Amino acid sequence: MENEEFGRLLVKSALAGDSSVVPLAEFEEWYARQLHTARADVERIPFAELEGWDFDPATGNLGHRSGRFFSVEGLAVTMRSEPFLAWSQPIIDQPEVGILGLLAKEIDGVLHFLMQGKMEPGNINSVQLSPTVQATHSNYIGVHRGANVPYLDYFIEPRPGRVILDVLQSEHGSWFWCKRNRNIVVLVDDDVPARDGFCWLTLGQLHELLRVDNLINMDSRTVLACLPFPVPASAPGGGSEFHDALVRSSREDVRGLHSAEENQSWFTEARTRPLVERRRVGLGGIPGWSRSEREITHEDGKYFKVAAVAVQAGNREVRQWTQPLFVPVGHGVAAFLTKTIGGVLHLLVQARLEPGLLDVVELGPTVQCTPENYAGGERPAFLDYVLAADAGKIRYEARLSEEGGRFLHAVSRYLVIETDEDFPLDVPPGHRWMTVAQLTGLLRHSYYLNVQARTLIACLRSL
Amino acid sequence: MENEEFGRLLVKSALAGDSSVVPLAEFEEWYARQLHTARADVERIPFAELEGWDFDPATGNLGHRSGRFFSVEGLAVTMRSEPFLAWSQPIIDQPEVGILGLLAKEIDGVLHFLMQGKMEPGNINSVQLSPTVQATHSNYIGVHRGANVPYLDYFIEPRPGRVILDVLQSEHGSWFWCKRNRNIVVLVDDDVPARDGFCWLTLGQLHELLRVDNLINMDSRTVLACLPFPVPASAPGGGSEFHDALVRSSREDVRGLHSAEENQSWFTEARTRPLVERRRVGLGGIPGWSRSEREITHEDGKYFKVAAVAVQAGNREVRQWTQPLFVPVGHGVAAFLTKTIGGVLHLLVQARLEPGLLDVVELGPTVQCTPENYAGGERPAFLDYVLAADAGKIRYEARLSEEGGRFLHAVSRYLVIETDEDFPLDVPPGHRWMTVAQLTGLLRHSYYLNVQARTLIACLRSL
Repeated sequence: MENEEFGRLLVKSALAGDSSVVPLAEFEEWYARQLHTARADVERIPFAELEGWDFDPATGNLGHRSGRFFSVEGLAVTMRSEPFLAWSQPIIDQPEVGILGLLAKEIDGVLHFLMQGKMEPGNINSVQLSPTVQATHSNYIGVHRGANVPYLDYFIEPRPGRVILDVLQSEHGSWFWCKRNRNIVVLVDDDVPARDGFCWLTLGQLHELLRVDNLINMDSRTVLACLPFPVPASAPGGGSEFHDALVRSSREDVRGLHSAEENQSWFTEARTRPLVERRRVGLGGIPGWSRSEREITHEDGKYFKVAAVAVQAGNREVRQWTQPLFVPVGHGVAAFLTKTIGGVLHLLVQARLEPGLLDVVELGPTVQCTPENYAGGERPAFLDYVLAADAGKIRYEARLSEEGGRFLHAVSRYLVIETDEDFPLDVPPGHRWMTVAQLTGLLRHSYYLNVQARTLIACLRSL
Repeated sequence: MENEEFGRLLVKSALAGDSSVVPLAEFEEWYARQLHTARADVERIPFAELEGWDFDPATGNLGHRSGRFFSVEGLAVTMRSEPFLAWSQPIIDQPEVGILGLLAKEIDGVLHFLMQGKMEPGNINSVQLSPTVQATHSNYIGVHRGANVPYLDYFIEPRPGRVILDVLQSEHGSWFWCKRNRNIVVLVDDDVPARDGFCWLTLGQLHELLRVDNLINMDSRTVLACLPFPVPASAPGGGSEFHDALVRSSREDVRGLHSAEENQSWFTEARTRPLVERRRVGLGGIPGWSRSEREITHEDGKYFKVAAVAVQAGNREVRQWTQPLFVPVGHGVAAFLTKTIGGVLHLLVQARLEPGLLDVVELGPTVQCTPENYAGGERPAFLDYVLAADAGKIRYEARLSEEGGRFLHAVSRYLVIETDEDFPLDVPPGHRWMTVAQLTGLLRHSYYLNVQARTLIACLRSL
């Protein structure tokens, strides 16, 4: 299948704001049922009560005795270029590639996606909508070949169905060491019934649900962002100036302020300039951090903590377990400022350095930070503009959760804000105006857009 | 300037097999002059005679006292997936991005490129043709802004001229830790005289010179490979079946055996499967390697040695220096097998794991190895086919040097070999048939093709 043909199917699905398979009116009930059956009790525990997890006596790293899952280690970062910062921090090492697999299927002539109501211990509301499969390689190697993970067979070769997109993308570069996820969408023809805990939804329905706080999880958002489709002109909201500019911005044949080649050169410059030394070190005794019985904290009380939880789950294959989690201090803000230039909506992207990203710099939203971390210090560019934005200029706003399997109650306020007419075209060298199509074009390849930018792309295309 | 317009200029330049600026007939004389004035004396010395370089007493790492240039450290690799190998090795750490900058200019209506006759201590013949600029960030930060590096201003913002391509690419992943080079081509309109040691050549002339052993250096080859242009139908050689298939293969609108999406999915699978643990360790006492007064060697006498040299140079800004170099044991072989499928030439690429690559796996030639390393053991796929190839099937062959600033006399035999008609379409899962245009399309982005594959793409398009 060609990309264009699939693009047409996606547009049709985006226009299907509801479906007879699981109408939105019934979705609430379905979701309430998931909450009822799958909700877990999560309790903070002292590290000593972790089962199977130990601090290595030599390095101080926190890992599982089996060597599986993930470990919490230390990272020492020294910037040998401006702003010449140096710091150490805990970081999650999970070398296995995660699979974020989404099944797609035409039902009654409209593409539906098989979503899962998935409990994760760090989720603020326990159950959120995930892709069909969230798994790691360990889940499917060996004899069992993922017997415990429903639908995993569709994402392992040889597989039924056709792969529509399949690309590695990064995860949170401030908290993960070079974490990579395989964003994969498979289109199937045969009859695939939704098991208990799964439901088929159209893209239009998913777009509606993206407006709900803490419902569509991070893994779903990144896969949705990678879907190649233009915003349909006749979607609800069509006709407004903002929407028309968005429609034009999402078309590949519409020129932006800069060409793709110019953007590429700017991005290469942004990746070339920083000279960052990264050393993985033992977690024990990294400067600025200390460990108590219940948590590892920074001396300023900023950034995040490392803690441990016990999980008592309803419907998972493993019903009881303990694990470490990162607990962010404060809520994040991730916002794209937009400006209509020549009738085409442009997003103000930021070349963002995050120490855990494979190639250190990726494109992020205009603003991405936890404001509390900047109390009393110099504040990130455009943060104050975002926080002071007029309600009438906010085109999208929701509180969305980060990965609930590793982060406890990590919530960010995601925003798309239209700038005032007099907002300058000239921006600092680390920022750049780009069209939606320029960004979604880059999403065919790995490691251009960070996970927060991907979330906002998914949300923006729902407007 | 659009890519297409630049593509037309490149095609015209590729068809210009000679030029009145520096005719090939005069090039030999020009090159002999470079050899005469720039040739350096390079002498192997004991490590103790290195000036400014020390083995760190704690780690055993070999670095420069200034903290600049590069260091030789240790890398421990453990594959937690097939073939479950584990080894340790010395590796070069050079965190700075290298700039490989090539100036382009229309002279008498034909695009010429400004090449430099550059001495590197490891070069087998002292002087080879490099891009206009080979520099690192340190060369241009600070007050001097690269006063010592001719033409560097064209590659630093704000710059005169227009950037035509600008992309980070990897270097040898077996010897470098995550080394990245900025491949950048700038088109200028103004009059740029060739200084002593530089000469303007057409793409057609460069294609001729690519057939000469050890003349066009690695840095030139990778930049040439990234140039976006189709092989012109009317080039010398046009009309042969092989050349016609190559012409079709280099056109973006010609379909290959697999679609771009299918290739992307195969590549993602290839990057997902290996589970490789990489730990940077001190060079001192890594298992299997030992240090004498003059070199660090592997106990089997295989792979490479670390050694030291003293350089006495003719025309460099620093006229005398000492430095470590890697000395490969044996000569490499890098070969693409080709097959014409439906009238379109396909190259058999290999998804290659190299421990120093940023994302571990990139696309390499069908065969890439040092045969001596496999004496008595299992030999790499297709190596014997390559070594036994009939002379009549060899479409390209030359001995080309790897980076002479870091490697002493590292020479590989580069080959393009047409397979027999009965060569199977079905290949092992780690190999895949792709067209030239599919590969050059990927070269717009970072870290898809390794440096050996890039060399062969540059050579192949010269046929």
